[in-house]
Amino acid sequence: MSRSHSTGGDGSTGVGGRFTLADLPLRDDLRGKSAYGAPQLRVPVILNTNENPHPPSQALVDDVAKAVGSAAEELHRYPDRDAIDLRTDLAAYLSRATGVSLTVDNLWAANGSNEILQQILQAFGGPGRTAMGFVPSYSMHPIISDGTQTEWVPAHRADDYGLDVDAAIAAIAEHRPDVVFVTSPNNPTGESLPAADVAAIVRAAPGVVIVDEAYAEFSDEPSAVTLLDEYGAKLIVSRTMSKAFAFAGGRLGYLAAAPAMIEALLLVRLPYHLSVITQAAARAALQHSAETLGSVTALVAERERVVAALTEMGFDVSPSNANFILFGEFADAPATWQRYLDDGVLIRDVGLPGRLRATIGLPAENDAFLAVSEKLAATDRKQ
Amino acid sequence: MSRSHSTGGDGSTGVGGRFTLADLPLRDDLRGKSAYGAPQLRVPVILNTNENPHPPSQALVDDVAKAVGSAAEELHRYPDRDAIDLRTDLAAYLSRATGVSLTVDNLWAANGSNEILQQILQAFGGPGRTAMGFVPSYSMHPIISDGTQTEWVPAHRADDYGLDVDAAIAAIAEHRPDVVFVTSPNNPTGESLPAADVAAIVRAAPGVVIVDEAYAEFSDEPSAVTLLDEYGAKLIVSRTMSKAFAFAGGRLGYLAAAPAMIEALLLVRLPYHLSVITQAAARAALQHSAETLGSVTALVAERERVVAALTEMGFDVSPSNANFILFGEFADAPATWQRYLDDGVLIRDVGLPGRLRATIGLPAENDAFLAVSEKLAATDRKQ
Repeated sequence: MSRSHSTGGDGSTGVGGRFTLADLPLRDDLRGKSAYGAPQLRVPVILNTNENPHPPSQALVDDVAKAVGSAAEELHRYPDRDAIDLRTDLAAYLSRATGVSLTVDNLWAANGSNEILQQILQAFGGPGRTAMGFVPSYSMHPIISDGTQTEWVPAHRADDYGLDVDAAIAAIAEHRPDVVFVTSPNNPTGESLPAADVAAIVRAAPGVVIVDEAYAEFSDEPSAVTLLDEYGAKLIVSRTMSKAFAFAGGRLGYLAAAPAMIEALLLVRLPYHLSVITQAAARAALQHSAETLGSVTALVAERERVVAALTEMGFDVSPSNANFILFGEFADAPATWQRYLDDGVLIRDVGLPGRLRATIGLPAENDAFLAVSEKLAATDRKQ
Repeated sequence: MSRSHSTGGDGSTGVGGRFTLADLPLRDDLRGKSAYGAPQLRVPVILNTNENPHPPSQALVDDVAKAVGSAAEELHRYPDRDAIDLRTDLAAYLSRATGVSLTVDNLWAANGSNEILQQILQAFGGPGRTAMGFVPSYSMHPIISDGTQTEWVPAHRADDYGLDVDAAIAAIAEHRPDVVFVTSPNNPTGESLPAADVAAIVRAAPGVVIVDEAYAEFSDEPSAVTLLDEYGAKLIVSRTMSKAFAFAGGRLGYLAAAPAMIEALLLVRLPYHLSVITQAAARAALQHSAETLGSVTALVAERERVVAALTEMGFDVSPSNANFILFGEFADAPATWQRYLDDGVLIRDVGLPGRLRATIGLPAENDAFLAVSEKLAATDRKQ
């Protein structure tokens, strides 16, 4: 199925193949765990990782190749450790997108938002500190907390997966977490949080609040970037080029924060973490942002079409401000997930009872997804 | 001087500029620290970060651009999380280089060897665990230990900076470190450790031994990869494309280990850590390894020329198996470092009393370095 590793231990997998994980002096807290990751399968319709289904234009591809070719002439030299040019370009984009006047000193970038979040937790979480999230939410938040030895303290969303701000503030007051994750739009539920609610959470939080806006471009709520001037000592807004920018393969996460926050991250970032190639490719892709972000409008329209069709079929669909939808209710979601796959449609079982998540794809992909959904509405839906 | 960040706090550096580092809920163990990094200065002769001075060939640049352009057509999709093709190519290269038959299951890759080392410490170090190194050595080892909350336990090299294996084994017996760093060739001293000595240290170590072979291609000692079949439950050999491969800008570190070790690292690696672009560019560069590694022979010959000339001038030069040399003795090494810089030659003050480190450059760069050295031999050398 997935292109995963051999398990070792049979002597056929290269030198040292007779040793097993049990032979190694692994940390106790890692024993028995398994590696994160959705299956990477080759099927006709891939709607499981919230990628943007629109491939990059030939002009973008050409510009990336040209920019990388130019940067490659200096491949023998280390990259600009502080990625000044890229951060300047990101500041210009995010200023346009949010109406807030950001500079290079407000921006930081890393190899995907995972590395961004890891750096934040290294600086503001870590041993003896706690991080709170409102679950169900992005599954990497607890994993990155674990990886940085930050104690994960989950608080729970309402039964409809909405975030009850009063309940969130009460959970913060009870647990006094050093770091709070707010995901807006939330993954896997799709809900955005109004900026006023984010502000209320920031005021209540004793430590840092990370607003994870990976899907912000698909949302009609204002960005939490609008709160930075007031709450810069506590607020960090993380973003990514993986979704709206159709740059998942390029691995470029970034954040906006007060300049002092960026200084803090410089204390924990690995030097030269962003290659000259990544910096050049991301800058080339940003030049095409108007064209790339045009796909957002199309995806939002497709999302509304898919939501309407699923609702018509009798499914319960969570309100979504993102490029995916959470829907159900199924009698046996893992079994239904497999039936979608058997029909060539890969969606995501995020582990919520009775629910599955589907990324919004190209119109033909959504048609294929809806056709299977219509079939399964009769057989798999919980009555 | 260096392209560093503004310090914030004056309100002119973007939104939230009035907040300072002191206002943030930073971890206590980070307060008062400063960010790692050699100055990134634009001067005529740059011999401070052990880069390979030979720029990539036009053929390599063209192939990197072509490979990236091809990979960029799928930029909207996440990369192969396990980087199977790249690891297969790295296994083929390292098998050729060491004579040991390695497979994809013996190799792992990340964004520079810094990320490789960080992942190893996340799996085998961390809170409550210790890491030992034999100092002076690579300055990132204690920094990455700190960043992963692994207690750093330095043991000291002999007065001539050689590694006394009996003393190393005694230090291991005394402190029982969970992780031992052995750097061969050692940075900043240049000395290689014979494989038999590495084996003795591995036998003595209660936990994992990381042999950091960043400069192995410049050395005439066999790689510790030859020990993997026997010591696979404890031994990891880290490598990089930054030095001999002239790929510092591409950020590609890798390691060889038993397959079970790779499984352990999968538990801590951030998913999708290596972009499609990095994977494609590194594979293209590896295709040119014969040509790139041709520069190694030239650099070793230049190293011998530089060592002979400095010795002739009366300097004490540590024996080097790498692409740099440590030399002295100066009355005031920081002052002498500045005088090299004033004459347009950037070398490295690694913080050792009376010593400076210089990377071996192109012949003309080495001539410039030697000309300044000759001048300073009369004025700055400790008598």
